[in-house]
Amino acid sequence: MAKRQSIYFYNKPIITGSYSIVGPKEGNGPFGQYFDFIMEKDFFGEKTYEKAERKMIEHVIKGAIKKSKIGADKINLILSGDLLNQIISSSYAARQFSIPYLGLFGACSTMAETLAVGAMLIDGGFFDNVVCSTASHFSTAERQFRFPLELGNQRVPTSQWTVTGAGACVLSKEGKGPRITMATFGKVVDYNITDVNNMGAAMAPAAADTILTHFKDTKRDPSYYDLIVTGDLGKLGSEILIDLLEEKGLKLGTNYTDCGHVYFSRKQDTMCGGSGCGCSASIFASFILGKLNKKEINRVLFLPTGALMSTTASQQGDSIPGICHAVVIENIE
Amino acid sequence: MAKRQSIYFYNKPIITGSYSIVGPKEGNGPFGQYFDFIMEKDFFGEKTYEKAERKMIEHVIKGAIKKSKIGADKINLILSGDLLNQIISSSYAARQFSIPYLGLFGACSTMAETLAVGAMLIDGGFFDNVVCSTASHFSTAERQFRFPLELGNQRVPTSQWTVTGAGACVLSKEGKGPRITMATFGKVVDYNITDVNNMGAAMAPAAADTILTHFKDTKRDPSYYDLIVTGDLGKLGSEILIDLLEEKGLKLGTNYTDCGHVYFSRKQDTMCGGSGCGCSASIFASFILGKLNKKEINRVLFLPTGALMSTTASQQGDSIPGICHAVVIENIE
Repeated sequence: MAKRQSIYFYNKPIITGSYSIVGPKEGNGPFGQYFDFIMEKDFFGEKTYEKAERKMIEHVIKGAIKKSKIGADKINLILSGDLLNQIISSSYAARQFSIPYLGLFGACSTMAETLAVGAMLIDGGFFDNVVCSTASHFSTAERQFRFPLELGNQRVPTSQWTVTGAGACVLSKEGKGPRITMATFGKVVDYNITDVNNMGAAMAPAAADTILTHFKDTKRDPSYYDLIVTGDLGKLGSEILIDLLEEKGLKLGTNYTDCGHVYFSRKQDTMCGGSGCGCSASIFASFILGKLNKKEINRVLFLPTGALMSTTASQQGDSIPGICHAVVIENIE
Repeated sequence: MAKRQSIYFYNKPIITGSYSIVGPKEGNGPFGQYFDFIMEKDFFGEKTYEKAERKMIEHVIKGAIKKSKIGADKINLILSGDLLNQIISSSYAARQFSIPYLGLFGACSTMAETLAVGAMLIDGGFFDNVVCSTASHFSTAERQFRFPLELGNQRVPTSQWTVTGAGACVLSKEGKGPRITMATFGKVVDYNITDVNNMGAAMAPAAADTILTHFKDTKRDPSYYDLIVTGDLGKLGSEILIDLLEEKGLKLGTNYTDCGHVYFSRKQDTMCGGSGCGCSASIFASFILGKLNKKEINRVLFLPTGALMSTTASQQGDSIPGICHAVVIENIE
């Protein structure tokens, strides 16, 4: 069963419910109509952006459980992570539920990590229902990783806009919905990028590594999938990914896109596009699962990417390693 | 199989190797003779304490793999976490290995989280060998969570000393060694403690909750275990735990101890004792597994505790939630 990096699920955990929340800017973007809830203001009725981010996770967990029609008392575990120091958005959100909690961190790849680990825990027979969640918030990430918001710093052309968004999915042993059929776990890959305003370039090599491994392990062709979607490489990062793959002889077709690249419209002025844990999570929990549920698409290769950066590491001259985990979601009769 | 919080392993993953590294102060403490490696200096030959912490994780991963006598090419996954922002010690250490990586965060409960998740992944048949690791470093934690080291701040009586230490374990499907037989996953528990210098009080309620759940789920009595050991409640926290459990009618006997409480000798002047991910991890990977391997003890309930604190949350007036996961390690013929 266990190849070196790819694993297949025999019981194929079912995504029985999902929920997404985004901020007003995100709601005005091209995916606005698909999100479950658009916040009127980034503060979400809280006094700080950090408390708003935490509340977003609480709400998507509750929303996904409600949509799954499984009682909260039947949820065995919360798996969650986020970008804030010590993943406080997740931990403090989990405090609101009387459900055991595992904190995970894969930077912006966290949605894939929670889905892949959650799927193993269901598939292995340990739990019946788990909820996987993550979030990011422009204002918390910006001030933690880059500059004070009040500074109004000019944004460089390679920069991306951290999405204010959250997504959650309930994975179940039984029920109806698309199934997680396999996962490919990524290695930490570092191409020596040190520019904290060029996350796409830092993450693209990790995405390339995981994609090449996935197709090698599965002996599949990219045409197997209706949709191959990376997390938040953005405009530049996804172009680098395509180049890196073509160098290795793998050609992605028109079934490939990147959540970050397409998250905002051009006039929303986000340079290279969206980023953050909430970028791929909110699109996955709304648009992608929506299309899967309607059977408009049936086979998805979901590849959130993470830049394992920290201000401390950057200040000490370290480069930014990337990681990418792959999760396959399919409609199976 | 799946009770609400406790799970039993049928294949019972084997701890085939473990390794511990500590700093000089830790090496001079009562457990000095048990650690695999004692660093001469806290810098471990690096230019910053953060780079030293990262190197400690690299070394314990290599050490545990070597002691397991399983080739590094047969290790399927690294599970690791630590206290630094964005768990950089783990991610940057994982960069040195061509092995897929999952980052986890449970504050000082991280060793239990990696062991419990790792055991599920082995037991579920997904992987043959995984390595679980964590570390903490006095000088990185102190300056990240509390005060600049140069300030020479006076320590309050309830404070604990973050252990400079790391531990790693290889979990395998096959081989010789003590086995992980079950785990109880903890909820986030908050008793409204806001004093960042009183971690023991913040974590004790979470430990009590997990211990009560564990004995309720298993219908065992504390006397089932040769050793019941919490992570880093320290002197005060472990007394609070005993009180909380006695209120609920559960009496821990002389088989109970706390790694933090016993980590340093009285003359080492650490107030309430040791703390940090590396506290329970380094004692587990050396003293506890040593005794299990020699069959001097055969049944251990290992309960690392985590304070899910962050300076951002504290500055915004939040209390400090705690978490505790339980892992059972047994010698089985």
